[in-house]
Amino acid sequence: MIPQPLEQLIKQLSRLPGLGPRSAQRAALHLITNPEAMIALQQMMGTVGAEIKTCTTCGNIGIADPCHICTNQKRDKATLCVVEGVDDLWAIERSGAFKGHYHVLGGVMSALDGIGPEQLNIPKLTERVIENGATEVILALGASVDGQTTSHYISRQIKQENPEVQVSALAKGIPMGAEVDYLDDGTLNLALQGRQSF
Amino acid sequence: MIPQPLEQLIKQLSRLPGLGPRSAQRAALHLITNPEAMIALQQMMGTVGAEIKTCTTCGNIGIADPCHICTNQKRDKATLCVVEGVDDLWAIERSGAFKGHYHVLGGVMSALDGIGPEQLNIPKLTERVIENGATEVILALGASVDGQTTSHYISRQIKQENPEVQVSALAKGIPMGAEVDYLDDGTLNLALQGRQSF
Repeated sequence: MIPQPLEQLIKQLSRLPGLGPRSAQRAALHLITNPEAMIALQQMMGTVGAEIKTCTTCGNIGIADPCHICTNQKRDKATLCVVEGVDDLWAIERSGAFKGHYHVLGGVMSALDGIGPEQLNIPKLTERVIENGATEVILALGASVDGQTTSHYISRQIKQENPEVQVSALAKGIPMGAEVDYLDDGTLNLALQGRQSF
Repeated sequence: MIPQPLEQLIKQLSRLPGLGPRSAQRAALHLITNPEAMIALQQMMGTVGAEIKTCTTCGNIGIADPCHICTNQKRDKATLCVVEGVDDLWAIERSGAFKGHYHVLGGVMSALDGIGPEQLNIPKLTERVIENGATEVILALGASVDGQTTSHYISRQIKQENPEVQVSALAKGIPMGAEVDYLDDGTLNLALQGRQSF
């Protein structure tokens, strides 16, 4: 009873992360009842498709290749920060705490999903470590099992070929504003193990 | 640091119901990394925009105006089912429990959002009651305060002008498969008041 073209649109929308079949249906009805929103969305997708490029150096996305971070002379190219995706890069940039270059892996290794190192942007990373004369590689991957496995793998790879490069990972501990009694055991354990002297 | 065209796309996506700023960002990144999905979505929106029409009779959407329900000779035009939106119409059609015609209001009255009867498809409903020679109007609006207010308003309107038309509303009670001890007080109250003899 749902008209066929609309059914197709709902199917396409439901493939977006964060939208299930029900919310895709609501989104499609919203677009039909707001034609100007639908046209704007269509146009923006066209613009993004035409203008946005993936940086062949670091894997960031932007309107230029190489991206504005790779071409920024003020940034320290000897410090590489390895992230899973572009959204992680954005989060770190927002924090303003990092002034080096990035390397976007495009995912993490996952035995379940069959993602090995060859599916990720890892070979390029070892090249860049040499090319950039890197002194430090910061592994800013998630604290999940897959994230940690990937960190270990990359760390071993880099240290094997470039023993002089320092490899570090994000500190683990209690997040800002957290109450100790609401923390899970794993985090508390890591926060105690990594306790810092005052 | 998010490239400008992408920022615009995220903004457009975040206006869809069910997508917040964070999930819109994830959806935009998904589209950029899957260009074929983005092109398919763009095309489907074009097709939907060109082919989907709103039925000027009942407010349903479909590839024809009047819609396939209004033109179906096998359906009983003397029974009108009033719904808030097209998604409600789809839900009732899925149930297969109704073989009359529909009337889509396009919302419910809401003091908070400033939606009165004149913003809804109500005048057309009273016309159709006469035109179709309706014998029954079923109010299938939600059990919210706004839905019930709208039901009362429409019921009074119809009975004033056509006292012979029967006006009914969806039964209220415990939903299929529900456990009594998990029900809220309001539903339990209504289920007891409306108890049916075996």
